Amino acid sequence: MFELLKKSKKSKARLGVLNTARGKVDTPFFMPIATKAAIKSMEASEVKNLGAQIILSNTYHNLLRPGLDVIKKFGGLHKFMDSDLPILTDSGGYQVFSLAKLRKIIGNDIKFQSHIDGSTHILNPRRVIDIQVVLGSDIMMVLDECVGLPTTWDKALEALERTSRWAQLAVDYKNKLNKKSTKIKKQLIFGIVQGADFKDLRLRSAKELVAMNFDGYAIGGLAVGETAKVMYQVLDYTVDQLPENKARYLMGVGYPENIIEAVKRGIDMFDCVIPTREARHGKLYIWRTQPNVSKKNFYTTININNAKFRKDKTPINNTTLKNYSRAYLHHLFKTGEPLSLKLATLNNLEFYLTLMAQIRQAIRANKL
Amino acid sequence: MFELLKKSKKSKARLGVLNTARGKVDTPFFMPIATKAAIKSMEASEVKNLGAQIILSNTYHNLLRPGLDVIKKFGGLHKFMDSDLPILTDSGGYQVFSLAKLRKIIGNDIKFQSHIDGSTHILNPRRVIDIQVVLGSDIMMVLDECVGLPTTWDKALEALERTSRWAQLAVDYKNKLNKKSTKIKKQLIFGIVQGADFKDLRLRSAKELVAMNFDGYAIGGLAVGETAKVMYQVLDYTVDQLPENKARYLMGVGYPENIIEAVKRGIDMFDCVIPTREARHGKLYIWRTQPNVSKKNFYTTININNAKFRKDKTPINNTTLKNYSRAYLHHLFKTGEPLSLKLATLNNLEFYLTLMAQIRQAIRANKL
Repeated sequence: MFELLKKSKKSKARLGVLNTARGKVDTPFFMPIATKAAIKSMEASEVKNLGAQIILSNTYHNLLRPGLDVIKKFGGLHKFMDSDLPILTDSGGYQVFSLAKLRKIIGNDIKFQSHIDGSTHILNPRRVIDIQVVLGSDIMMVLDECVGLPTTWDKALEALERTSRWAQLAVDYKNKLNKKSTKIKKQLIFGIVQGADFKDLRLRSAKELVAMNFDGYAIGGLAVGETAKVMYQVLDYTVDQLPENKARYLMGVGYPENIIEAVKRGIDMFDCVIPTREARHGKLYIWRTQPNVSKKNFYTTININNAKFRKDKTPINNTTLKNYSRAYLHHLFKTGEPLSLKLATLNNLEFYLTLMAQIRQAIRANKL
Repeated sequence: MFELLKKSKKSKARLGVLNTARGKVDTPFFMPIATKAAIKSMEASEVKNLGAQIILSNTYHNLLRPGLDVIKKFGGLHKFMDSDLPILTDSGGYQVFSLAKLRKIIGNDIKFQSHIDGSTHILNPRRVIDIQVVLGSDIMMVLDECVGLPTTWDKALEALERTSRWAQLAVDYKNKLNKKSTKIKKQLIFGIVQGADFKDLRLRSAKELVAMNFDGYAIGGLAVGETAKVMYQVLDYTVDQLPENKARYLMGVGYPENIIEAVKRGIDMFDCVIPTREARHGKLYIWRTQPNVSKKNFYTTININNAKFRKDKTPINNTTLKNYSRAYLHHLFKTGEPLSLKLATLNNLEFYLTLMAQIRQAIRANKL
């Protein structure tokens, strides 16, 4: 599944390929987010044209809407949303703990009410696998418990122990299903390391999960309120515990500089709402010069709503949006035209995808 | 400018070509609306790919936002919004009388306050031409006064007389500018026939405008509250007053059946918010069978929000959206995903553009 192609001579950064049932993905990579089976304002084919090789969707959201009966009828998310790109799906753990109402853990079941209509649902480690079988996820994530930071050692321990127990249930169940279905067997499954910002807990969590022999390992419970410095420290001691021959995924991160620092610490996979969410508010990611991650200050952000862009003839970018000026996008935001969202999203996703291509290029050239 | 290619043997329907500074447009045609220099949720290039040969924008809206100083800096609307399609611009008359606040007519000036920020502006017949010179409109419309229906003969007369007086001022001014600039000379200018639903007034208005020798003639003041029957009656006696060698434009119409009936009465050009506005609410235009305007009940509309589409695997359409199901679009509307608007708009605009192509085909075959 994961092929390590090259290790940087300057850092722990790695170049590789992640092989999925729906094709290969060059690492390190960034996954545009299609939480509810749609990328904000863009067709999946348009995102593919920007260079995306994989996208991310979500177990919790798809379970609630459109509902599994609908997805099942289509034979999975890919057909439903018309994308042939590999899809990684979140387990829903994060959403159940952050969005759902009246949440109650009974044994291995999380009973909760939908944040949309109050309907009652149950998730547990096996059901989360079953759901991702229906979704047709190319990469499944196990159900975990993610605690926000700051937190106490005791709370982090409790979440870690539950996460490990659930991971074992998930992987055992998945192995059983593998024997029944070659299609399911081709769906990769990743474990999620927890442990908050406590070194002993992170090491323990990593050790327990590695023993379960997952197809890849995510580091969860970061980008949940801590400083970048703390996040990098956790990566420094956690990544070393993970096997070299498996992909490593830092969940929910981050700004371009966070991604670069994480790549230097051996991370291969990223997802984040930043490019799409900030596009919605008119915040655009802009290369200062040619895309170049080796230089400092290689990018900036602008708020296109700012009056200074009213007559700015500078193109939004020099590639896909070179025929649209900042003045035009400013106008679209000021008048609330829905096209504003698409152009801003396109700009930011292209920035992130180009960033990852530049990172891969920099590793190849031993510059990162 | 207008070339009449064929007259139907079954009705007053005509096939023709309207030549503009930015290329030819096959008549009868429908203009997708880009009121504020943007088509709702679509790039102009995407609308061109659907078969649009011309789009419509608006003097009033562009005057207020982005403002003429911005458009001037870009050398016109085309460059600003990145479209090489011909653009027809409304004169702003309709918007000043329907949207603007504290409107006051002083001589030939309409003084009004912006409906957005209350700022004061003035439109008059010459200024409306000047604005459309800045916009770079391929087809300019004269400033007119449109009264809603029902109305009295006296009110309709007053509006007609003002419209004729303003039309003369506009055409005289345009002729003066033509001598100074070959670029302006290539911008077509259309007069607008008013007169509400009073035959004597419509005939008088048409006669007065025809004497001014416009490049084309619009019929305004319809689709403003009257029944379709009344609208067809007005067309029946008005169109005959217009010269055969000039294009005829029915403003703001309409539903597919209205367009077909108007084409049968000799109309060549249409614009309407229906396909884009109704898309916003999830109302989709659907061909019942193969596109065929000669058959009755050739289309239907569906409300994609309806629960019955939740699991409907039927493609949205059989052309550009054949890979997306109704169930998927239903899901996008239910979850408020911005992609919903684009797919629905695309469906409806494609329907209208295909409708016009079918109408032209039917005229060619003497079936309309």
